[in-house]
Amino acid sequence: MVNIPRGTQDILPGDVEKWQFIEEKARDICKRFNYKEIRTPIFEHTELFLRSVGESTDIVQKEMYTFEDRGERSLTLRPEGTAAVVRSYVENKMFGNPSQPTKLYYCGPMFRYERPQAGRYRQFVQFGVEALGSNDPAIDAEVIALAIEIYQSLGLKKLKLVINSLGDLSSRKAHREALVAHFTPRIDEFCSDCKARLEKNPMRILDCKKDRDHELMGTAPSIIEYLNEESSNYFTKVKSYLTDLHIDFEVDSGLVRGLDYYNHTAFEIMSNAEGFGAITTLCGGGRYNGLVEGLGGPETPGIGFALSIERLLAALQAENIELPVETKIDCFVAAIGEKASAKSVVLVNDLRKAGLLAEKDYLDKKVKAQFKAADRLQSQFVAILGEEELERNVITVKNMADGNQEEVQLDQFISFIQEKVNEE
Amino acid sequence: MVNIPRGTQDILPGDVEKWQFIEEKARDICKRFNYKEIRTPIFEHTELFLRSVGESTDIVQKEMYTFEDRGERSLTLRPEGTAAVVRSYVENKMFGNPSQPTKLYYCGPMFRYERPQAGRYRQFVQFGVEALGSNDPAIDAEVIALAIEIYQSLGLKKLKLVINSLGDLSSRKAHREALVAHFTPRIDEFCSDCKARLEKNPMRILDCKKDRDHELMGTAPSIIEYLNEESSNYFTKVKSYLTDLHIDFEVDSGLVRGLDYYNHTAFEIMSNAEGFGAITTLCGGGRYNGLVEGLGGPETPGIGFALSIERLLAALQAENIELPVETKIDCFVAAIGEKASAKSVVLVNDLRKAGLLAEKDYLDKKVKAQFKAADRLQSQFVAILGEEELERNVITVKNMADGNQEEVQLDQFISFIQEKVNEE
Repeated sequence: MVNIPRGTQDILPGDVEKWQFIEEKARDICKRFNYKEIRTPIFEHTELFLRSVGESTDIVQKEMYTFEDRGERSLTLRPEGTAAVVRSYVENKMFGNPSQPTKLYYCGPMFRYERPQAGRYRQFVQFGVEALGSNDPAIDAEVIALAIEIYQSLGLKKLKLVINSLGDLSSRKAHREALVAHFTPRIDEFCSDCKARLEKNPMRILDCKKDRDHELMGTAPSIIEYLNEESSNYFTKVKSYLTDLHIDFEVDSGLVRGLDYYNHTAFEIMSNAEGFGAITTLCGGGRYNGLVEGLGGPETPGIGFALSIERLLAALQAENIELPVETKIDCFVAAIGEKASAKSVVLVNDLRKAGLLAEKDYLDKKVKAQFKAADRLQSQFVAILGEEELERNVITVKNMADGNQEEVQLDQFISFIQEKVNEE
Repeated sequence: MVNIPRGTQDILPGDVEKWQFIEEKARDICKRFNYKEIRTPIFEHTELFLRSVGESTDIVQKEMYTFEDRGERSLTLRPEGTAAVVRSYVENKMFGNPSQPTKLYYCGPMFRYERPQAGRYRQFVQFGVEALGSNDPAIDAEVIALAIEIYQSLGLKKLKLVINSLGDLSSRKAHREALVAHFTPRIDEFCSDCKARLEKNPMRILDCKKDRDHELMGTAPSIIEYLNEESSNYFTKVKSYLTDLHIDFEVDSGLVRGLDYYNHTAFEIMSNAEGFGAITTLCGGGRYNGLVEGLGGPETPGIGFALSIERLLAALQAENIELPVETKIDCFVAAIGEKASAKSVVLVNDLRKAGLLAEKDYLDKKVKAQFKAADRLQSQFVAILGEEELERNVITVKNMADGNQEEVQLDQFISFIQEKVNEE
């Protein structure tokens, strides 16, 4: 037997309906917010992620699925969605489209070679949005409101929104210098990754999982203190819009996202449901002015988020929320005898072509077992066709809700079921 | 600038709506036919494809994206959907579920390293179904009817269904011997691939692209002549059901599918629209009794098909069919001045929360340019909020269809738009 690869999962009937429900809801919300879908390939040239996610990040250093294709190109299964969307935005010159900003969403599998654990897979599904081309703090609020709306529309209540500002380039530069000054005297006490980060990207030290309890972590200079006036004003406006939209938030000056390209607004949505587990982040996002230029496009501001569907499902479970998933069918056609069975193939096909959910037996079952199968499928109606009925051109229809049974002319059968189902 | 990998494509707004429409249609049809979605990972252990697709096929020999992960497992991006569905069926013991046969569908990207050409991508999307656990010829007909229904429901008319029977194991063995006898005397005239196939799998010779014009190809013994009685009866019943369902078909005894696991019913649906291009196959499928055992499960019959969405789109284009894709929005809120602009953020959010498709400006545009943006989005209504209106707690709503304009109380605005949109 060949098994499923480690860290991946099959999504099977019984569960898949929840995924469908969530994705449909998220798509519908994106439509209302005027975000359009974009689909990019599963793999990209490796260079894309080096240049966007950042060479000093855990993702690039340790977690990417990178391989050479038969033409010796280095390809990488996408570890996140933003880089490819921005690559596509530049390559397809979307900045030239008349409708701006360019508001996009995506939904699909992402890949990170991490240690599998509860709620963490090597292949996982992200739903994300990107708004490119506007520097209006109102769009930061819109993006956050969209994420919150997805969660709330599914019934989640125990949510915590945390925001921060990482400032613009000059704010980040001032903060960076302060961080280097803070950590340099005692950098020997940190892990080798952090030592490398001190030079390349000291903010990443704050993200370190190994050194998270070192005393210098708590006393590290906060980016908030180093925001220049423009960055500070921008952040104030974002917060003011969130307040206008009645969206509760906390400011956490320690919030730094695990990707290099963020600046200004950064945010996370967490579940604070009891017993949710160690990883409480459901959704993360932020502003990434500069990324479009970094990938060869014109100067363009951008902001987005990504949320994991796996975590969303875990949050629903933690709050004991059952999604209203429907699985019943309209009509099961039971047949007795060879001729009736052959006729039932046609009848079922006709029901389906008329838009009805219909099923029959394909295992040569006795009529009693066919009824049982119909029950299992929660069929609203069961139609019974025997040889004698077939000769008289009739079929017996039983309403499974009340047990009522009536005989219907075969040529009236489809419209009869259609009417009955519409009545319910 | 980093480009998209060769042989892949971005699906952008303007096109993506067609994909959404087709996929929704196909999902709806599967629901009516009582097929449930299954989602398997993007990659599988390489061994899975060696053991199912077959080591002597072009797919395995030349076209797979195979790589080692950081744990030195050999993984392969799935080149087709059936192997993984069967792997999952066995691994999750779906044969033990009470509802049988197990009827599944999938939709997602597949990967083959082929020479990119019109209509052929290295990453392409397949929609497919699998019915596992029934040996009833009626389910062969159902699977074919489902594929046809997808095409017809989208408006396609120029379709050709070709079917064949590859027979059961003993029929195939007799045919195999006849093929070896046929090709052996002149095998020197064939390509090296065909020479290897003669031993391993002589039926694959009939599939060869290089030797397709060799005179022995046309005179090769046909599987139809070697079908034993059981196989022949099975094929007769499948054809009879197709006739009952008013599905036209042609029998082509030369039809052999490019995967090793097929037996009994094999079929292809082609476009015969003028100017469709060289690759006319839209959809291929067949029966694969034996595959479940081959992958470690109990003896289980199976049948399925896969269709390419890219080819489906090409067929729609060849028949000049426009899908009824809707892109208009309900209401654009135009604002004049800083305070009104801030208020419009809240109004747009309220409209969206009420289920409406709403948009505003995020580029600090003058009111005239805001109207232009609303026009571009084909907004049904434009609401205009100035400072003076805001002071009076009103907003002006313009119906873009007839140009009528009226003033509405701000606290009535959302329900006013809701009613108007429902009226349309």
